Amino acid sequence: MAINLLKAGHSLRVFDLSVEAVKQVAAKGATGCKSAVETVQGIEILVTMLPAGNSVEGILRTNEALFDHLKAGTLIIDASTIDAATSKKMAAVATERNLSFIDAPVSGGTAGAAAGTLSFMVGGAESDFQRALPVLQCMGKNIFHAGGIGSGQVAKACNNMLLAILMAGTSEALNLGINNGLDPLALSEIMSRSSGGNWVLDCYNPVPGVMENAPASRDYQGGFFVDLMCKDLGLAMDISQTSGSPVPMGSIAKSLFNLHQTQGKGSLDFSSIVQLFQGKS
Amino acid sequence: MAINLLKAGHSLRVFDLSVEAVKQVAAKGATGCKSAVETVQGIEILVTMLPAGNSVEGILRTNEALFDHLKAGTLIIDASTIDAATSKKMAAVATERNLSFIDAPVSGGTAGAAAGTLSFMVGGAESDFQRALPVLQCMGKNIFHAGGIGSGQVAKACNNMLLAILMAGTSEALNLGINNGLDPLALSEIMSRSSGGNWVLDCYNPVPGVMENAPASRDYQGGFFVDLMCKDLGLAMDISQTSGSPVPMGSIAKSLFNLHQTQGKGSLDFSSIVQLFQGKS
Amino acid sequence: MAINLLKAGHSLRVFDLSVEAVKQVAAKGATGCKSAVETVQGIEILVTMLPAGNSVEGILRTNEALFDHLKAGTLIIDASTIDAATSKKMAAVATERNLSFIDAPVSGGTAGAAAGTLSFMVGGAESDFQRALPVLQCMGKNIFHAGGIGSGQVAKACNNMLLAILMAGTSEALNLGINNGLDPLALSEIMSRSSGGNWVLDCYNPVPGVMENAPASRDYQGGFFVDLMCKDLGLAMDISQTSGSPVPMGSIAKSLFNLHQTQGKGSLDFSSIVQLFQGKS
Amino acid sequence: MAINLLKAGHSLRVFDLSVEAVKQVAAKGATGCKSAVETVQGIEILVTMLPAGNSVEGILRTNEALFDHLKAGTLIIDASTIDAATSKKMAAVATERNLSFIDAPVSGGTAGAAAGTLSFMVGGAESDFQRALPVLQCMGKNIFHAGGIGSGQVAKACNNMLLAILMAGTSEALNLGINNGLDPLALSEIMSRSSGGNWVLDCYNPVPGVMENAPASRDYQGGFFVDLMCKDLGLAMDISQTSGSPVPMGSIAKSLFNLHQTQGKGSLDFSSIVQLFQGKS
Repeated sequence: MAINLLKAGHSLRVFDLSVEAVKQVAAKGATGCKSAVETVQGIEILVTMLPAGNSVEGILRTNEALFDHLKAGTLIIDASTIDAATSKKMAAVATERNLSFIDAPVSGGTAGAAAGTLSFMVGGAESDFQRALPVLQCMGKNIFHAGGIGSGQVAKACNNMLLAILMAGTSEALNLGINNGLDPLALSEIMSRSSGGNWVLDCYNPVPGVMENAPASRDYQGGFFVDLMCKDLGLAMDISQTSGSPVPMGSIAKSLFNLHQTQGKGSLDFSSIVQLFQGKS
Repeated sequence: MAINLLKAGHSLRVFDLSVEAVKQVAAKGATGCKSAVETVQGIEILVTMLPAGNSVEGILRTNEALFDHLKAGTLIIDASTIDAATSKKMAAVATERNLSFIDAPVSGGTAGAAAGTLSFMVGGAESDFQRALPVLQCMGKNIFHAGGIGSGQVAKACNNMLLAILMAGTSEALNLGINNGLDPLALSEIMSRSSGGNWVLDCYNPVPGVMENAPASRDYQGGFFVDLMCKDLGLAMDISQTSGSPVPMGSIAKSLFNLHQTQGKGSLDFSSIVQLFQGKS
Repeated sequence: MAINLLKAGHSLRVFDLSVEAVKQVAAKGATGCKSAVETVQGIEILVTMLPAGNSVEGILRTNEALFDHLKAGTLIIDASTIDAATSKKMAAVATERNLSFIDAPVSGGTAGAAAGTLSFMVGGAESDFQRALPVLQCMGKNIFHAGGIGSGQVAKACNNMLLAILMAGTSEALNLGINNGLDPLALSEIMSRSSGGNWVLDCYNPVPGVMENAPASRDYQGGFFVDLMCKDLGLAMDISQTSGSPVPMGSIAKSLFNLHQTQGKGSLDFSSIVQLFQGKS
Repeated sequence: MAINLLKAGHSLRVFDLSVEAVKQVAAKGATGCKSAVETVQGIEILVTMLPAGNSVEGILRTNEALFDHLKAGTLIIDASTIDAATSKKMAAVATERNLSFIDAPVSGGTAGAAAGTLSFMVGGAESDFQRALPVLQCMGKNIFHAGGIGSGQVAKACNNMLLAILMAGTSEALNLGINNGLDPLALSEIMSRSSGGNWVLDCYNPVPGVMENAPASRDYQGGFFVDLMCKDLGLAMDISQTSGSPVPMGSIAKSLFNLHQTQGKGSLDFSSIVQLFQGKS
């Protein structure tokens, strides 16, 4: 993502806990920094990407407290996938400090990041969205404005819950067909062109050999980890709980990915869920 | 379907329990008949479409016993959606009588039938498939050869189980987003262009007002009945039971459609399942 | 079961496909027979116990056709666990022949059979139930009259579906507690004396070491096979389908036992389902 | 609970946001107080019972900050049903202040509270448990020591998740039997004495008329609200998420109670879930 920003001509200051990662991007022209605080000196836009809500709150407010080091008017683009409640809280604090904050979680994986074809789902004010747009377009292909602050997180949680359902459902449908004598390629072709058509059949077939470039055809290495899917499903369950929304299909998909994870498959691509149905453990 | 065959220049003899239906097609040039047996006099290809496996066995073997009235070499195209076991049994008997039999269940609904854009999923020998192809192409757009006899039924059961999963899953994801402040149109657009993309979001959005031509925008009238989806899911459960295939997502989808049906919604379009999540009863 | 009838002073003629089984019971005083037909010569009550509905129909009506060999007034006690539809059909044919038929599926396993502590769930007329009662009491402890013909099968299907739910649910609750630091024995004790109390916690704890005599404490050998639970759940799904009854909990329990079976655990006791939650495969 | 402590001869200071509740207990001999801080003057044991983790943290640490007002050595018995993480945090702070803290969530409902037959599930050190025991025995019948701090919350979450499974599962099994012609009383009797036996069948039958004293026989008024069951299931889902424990049965039970809640049934007793299966809305 940083390299794509550099390519587009942006001037960049970067920091990561991995010294190696900083070096790699510095070699392409960014200014490598030794701390978060050092990084934000003089910047106009801050892009953060962290693994959990309390990490985001830690770096912005409580620990590194970047909120105290940003000049008025700075726009914070938080590309982390976290809970919407933290996004709303950060936006409220930012407003008090004359800063702007949008939530902009991303999907598309490391491959999409490298190719600059990520999707961003943005929550925040229209003016902030417009200001972020040219920056986001350097890193992604589809930039969606989902609604007010926190809406990016909600949209991503909904999408990834649906993705988990598509993957588990498609896997079990293909396995059912295979167990009843059908060829997985033929069945995939039929369903993808019928009312069962979905992104998994189009781009990410879980059965080895059906789709050459899919993780299934390289032993489920790389891709989107089962562990990460379980994390994202946890976020979806949280917003279902706080809003009293029934999510039976998402809950079962979560349970299936949890069962798979429990069998030691957490670091395989999430399309390996088909192995649970096949009894491969 | 019959009218589309006539349009293509085929000579047709037709029979249905509904006298009105026979009249309607006769008015377009078919020979209306008064019984099943009368209908099959002199024909080369028989197309049957009945609601259940025992109806198919009844008309071909036990009751009307059309097997006894067909000349050697006749091809039977059974477009019914039934259990694969009956299809295999009928094909075996047909072979003994020097007849040919293929299973060719259809999807696309009454709208697809009228427009000639149905999908056919065919199970049977390659030569029989080739012989049926020009006939099927008069009635449908996508003609798939799924595999040997019974494979059409299996493919349709897999596809419709997956469709039920897509519909229930998409409905609950949209409802989750709406309950968390998102606009259903915006969320539908985001997910349809992301990894949550699927046929339901593309063609059959369950939330009223999002898609003008979808059943959701006309009070869930017409379309594909909840009762029929429950029937098709029953067929999928049957082949999961006989093949020992786990179908957790399909089972839950079936339970949700059953709960909806129990609340008196059997004759609404199946996209009305979103009402179950919304608490509309 | 036969030995317990002998002990009670009944005169017995016995047949089984296993010559060894016949010998064993003959050694205790029964008349061993070489065929089903030979067995029923001169009897007043016939007890059948077969693995599936078509086996029962085969032996009574179509193949061995025992209906043709029984004298008028004979009472048939079918202790098989099969579909209620077959029970009703057999009872109807029996009535035509001046015979009586009740369905009396049994639960309690091989241990209960040896100890004479089985439960019988009987469907049929009150007079037939009363006539069967003294015979059933030689083999079982709890003899329930569930209702009219077929009701024994329905009651057993309901009970065993509920049992599957109790076992899967108790297993996942215990595993949740263990994963959060609780001692399985302490948690079992707490729940069994609280509102989570159920037969599994009382008699059949799935965690090894908690209950000395449970299959869990002997590597899940013996007991009630996963394969048999899957069969019984299939019967419950069938009556849910024909009656349009939603069974979400039972469906998920079935899917979990199917997943477990798929991993090669079909011949373990059904309490081994706890291994699925523990990731032991 | 307070009145039972008074009856046992304890001297009590009481506070509640409801002035009426304070008056009622004061009339029986307690010292009514006007604030939480006033209440804890001179006490040796503090019993708290609040609706959520942040309420407990608020009263003890951040808002009323009772931790600052308790004398060294005071034992805090928190009878709230909250997340185990908050219990652990409160215990850690208590230790720093030379105070003792145990989590002691309760089950048994308002009826059990009045009768002094509640169950307490206690987490904390053995010495603290022994010190609390005589106090808890004034209010409850079964006092369980589940393990170290937080274990009371975990045990209650496991038990109530299992209870939700028992209630939903028993309801759907009874409905399945009824739809297939069985009498609910007969089927309840059969299953309660067979392997389907559980607390719901023994004490809390969900079908109106089967059990005179159950909420089902008074239009599901009183008892344990659907809303509260949804809250408790949320706590179980939280510990399943943090411990990576698959809970498919609990998840589906939660979804079913959520669907029921969404239909406006939140303030009915939780056994009204049977109406969801019956299509009564």
